[in-house]
Amino acid sequence: MSTFAERKPLTIGLAGFGTVGGGLARLLEENADLVRRRTGRDMCIRRILVRDLEKARQIPLPAGAELTTDPVALTDDPDIDVVVELIGGIDHARVLIDRALEQGKHVVTANKALLAEEGLALFQKAARKGRILRYEASVAGAVPVVEALKESLAGNRVTSLMGILNGTSNYILSEMGSNGLDFDVALKQAQEKGYAEADPTLDIDGFDAAHKLILLVRLAYGVNYPYAALPVRGIRGLAAQDIGFAREFGYRIKLIGQVREVRSPAGEDCPEGPVRLEAGVFPALVHHTYLLARVGGVYNAVRVEANAAGALFFHGRGAGDLPTAGAVLADLMAVAREEMPNNTGYVEEDLPTAAIVPPEEWRSCYYVRVMVEDAPGVLRDISGCMAAEGISVAQMIQKADEGAGVPLVFMTHETTAKAMSDALQRAEAAGLLREPAVYYRVL
Amino acid sequence: MSTFAERKPLTIGLAGFGTVGGGLARLLEENADLVRRRTGRDMCIRRILVRDLEKARQIPLPAGAELTTDPVALTDDPDIDVVVELIGGIDHARVLIDRALEQGKHVVTANKALLAEEGLALFQKAARKGRILRYEASVAGAVPVVEALKESLAGNRVTSLMGILNGTSNYILSEMGSNGLDFDVALKQAQEKGYAEADPTLDIDGFDAAHKLILLVRLAYGVNYPYAALPVRGIRGLAAQDIGFAREFGYRIKLIGQVREVRSPAGEDCPEGPVRLEAGVFPALVHHTYLLARVGGVYNAVRVEANAAGALFFHGRGAGDLPTAGAVLADLMAVAREEMPNNTGYVEEDLPTAAIVPPEEWRSCYYVRVMVEDAPGVLRDISGCMAAEGISVAQMIQKADEGAGVPLVFMTHETTAKAMSDALQRAEAAGLLREPAVYYRVL
Repeated sequence: MSTFAERKPLTIGLAGFGTVGGGLARLLEENADLVRRRTGRDMCIRRILVRDLEKARQIPLPAGAELTTDPVALTDDPDIDVVVELIGGIDHARVLIDRALEQGKHVVTANKALLAEEGLALFQKAARKGRILRYEASVAGAVPVVEALKESLAGNRVTSLMGILNGTSNYILSEMGSNGLDFDVALKQAQEKGYAEADPTLDIDGFDAAHKLILLVRLAYGVNYPYAALPVRGIRGLAAQDIGFAREFGYRIKLIGQVREVRSPAGEDCPEGPVRLEAGVFPALVHHTYLLARVGGVYNAVRVEANAAGALFFHGRGAGDLPTAGAVLADLMAVAREEMPNNTGYVEEDLPTAAIVPPEEWRSCYYVRVMVEDAPGVLRDISGCMAAEGISVAQMIQKADEGAGVPLVFMTHETTAKAMSDALQRAEAAGLLREPAVYYRVL
Repeated sequence: MSTFAERKPLTIGLAGFGTVGGGLARLLEENADLVRRRTGRDMCIRRILVRDLEKARQIPLPAGAELTTDPVALTDDPDIDVVVELIGGIDHARVLIDRALEQGKHVVTANKALLAEEGLALFQKAARKGRILRYEASVAGAVPVVEALKESLAGNRVTSLMGILNGTSNYILSEMGSNGLDFDVALKQAQEKGYAEADPTLDIDGFDAAHKLILLVRLAYGVNYPYAALPVRGIRGLAAQDIGFAREFGYRIKLIGQVREVRSPAGEDCPEGPVRLEAGVFPALVHHTYLLARVGGVYNAVRVEANAAGALFFHGRGAGDLPTAGAVLADLMAVAREEMPNNTGYVEEDLPTAAIVPPEEWRSCYYVRVMVEDAPGVLRDISGCMAAEGISVAQMIQKADEGAGVPLVFMTHETTAKAMSDALQRAEAAGLLREPAVYYRVL
């Protein structure tokens, strides 16, 4: 390994000098000895792309680095080996990464939105140019789940994967659960602590988790799952009383990103039917004995079930300057070691499109809360709607009238989403519901 | 990445055709398509080293493979790319791996004992020959903690690492805790279930965990920690009543392998003192709210604390045919991708020897149980022994006389191992103890 010893420093063009970019600069300085011991090379930031040269910055400029507002000063500088993209968003980032690859640079990015929505063309270009495109920081921050799926679990067929992929939502749900806060209060608190943006849509409506899930699906199954086709439901307006009822049954409500393979029954001609994927982001009930239920605050976690490994569980910080910068630095060190590109985890230049299980066919147990009149026969009628769709009830709670009606809460045995929705439409049509029913999957 | 596309199959010489070897053969068949999609190459087992050619085997011989009893038929066959060592033990395995490297083969092994006790020379040889020596399966089975430390956390300074590294011990402790079994009964049950060997020494006396910890210390800190210098204490004879008392304080007792860096106070000339390591294997009390306390049965888990990532937690199966074989296969796939050797995670050919904190200086809170006479003044006298060594008690339980005396159970504030041991020697010398005191660190 002495071949590294006299190698020239790895030179970095850094796009974006905010929280994570500043964290990276700090880490490169603090852990410089370690980087040298582990890669045999120094690393230095040559140029930093910013929007405003004059803006006052908390972080001192790294020695030898100069600021620029011109992306081409990064992508086209022959003295830069690798471009680190931390500007976020779709359009500018795509142009930057595309040009960097075109110019023969390696690329490290934390941009989950870009890679989920338009990653395909970038992976193809990286493959054609034989360049490294790494993105460990884009999913679950410091939790090394990209590397795990691409390398450690490479010999495994993944049967299912579920994760808590959005720290903001998990913080809100944790606060609602521990301190009995209403959604709006918990959201406001998250905003005050800097865990949620002023416009929290991306986090609380599930889109951030959806971006990450698309990347995980690609890594686990080697397919492109079109982002627009992914069913996504966030936690906005989730009621404190549902967290309370779930707890009475022994469950926590978590925002889950999940994918699992569903094998169709074997036909006469083939020993096993085709593999289709059931993937989506949704709030779900997780039993309190599961490690996923123990994930609190802004932490992220991923549980992978695979045909050799069995169940694996990863847990750590999903965001923050240093946790994210540490993941970016690990990617840079792989570039410094001159690893062979292994960007998607598969050798194909074009990954196939995923075969998708339509959401109405998904099978699951359900938590259902309906608000009904406190009148004789109502429980019988609601139960009848369930039975008519073949849904069997496992447990039930009925509470006293709360003004808005009597809450009836059911835990069902496994059924399809379509049966569940049809049963509740029956109840609605029969005038049994005082407000729209609430239902969540149970994992 | 099309460079892989027309590459010749990776040919394997497999040493050992037991549980894990058989699992590997099965996985290579079941996941052959996946291996091809992920590496662009096929893999085939060319030769299998066994002790007895005539022995009846459960697992069919892989197509194209032949059995041999001659190690040289693996190491010296120019048609074999990589030797997989699954024979275990020290001497034969060392000779095999050494010769394989000498002959220019890559090596994948699951042999923690060999790498812990005599790994140094093998890593040096691999470095000199520029060959890959991988060992993911040797620590925590399917849990990819070797890869995580070597690559995902490469940019991090690890401040501490603690793990449940021996599934057998964890199973025994879990059964004692959940079902109130005595140690001997739980051990016998583990043996009947195949979780413990007929001679359980390696597992229950902590040596297996110690081997794994030595490898983790090397990966996390880039130092050789001499195996013979590692303090090791297992769970043999651990008393059910201590599990019960620990539970009353809110703790579980786990067999823990731990390493953490201890920075000496800065001197006048240097801004920061030298880094020394506090490493050992010992039963310890883990608070029930920690994820590590939730690790049940034969599972393994590792918690890493690092300067960028913060706390990371990994959990999964620590043993078993397929979980272990899956880790071996991941290593083989890295060989197939022709990764640059990154065997220790550091570029140096010779890693320095660890600076060690002597066990008597270790600082910790303690759980202490003493059996005393039910007589006036005894509590005062025992407390006096603690106070004389500067040990402050945080909590105490006193139970009624159990025949063998009255159990007094203390939880102390932080103190040194030396103070703890001295205090108990005082109590012993004063004739206060009806049987030897029991004490465990509290994490």
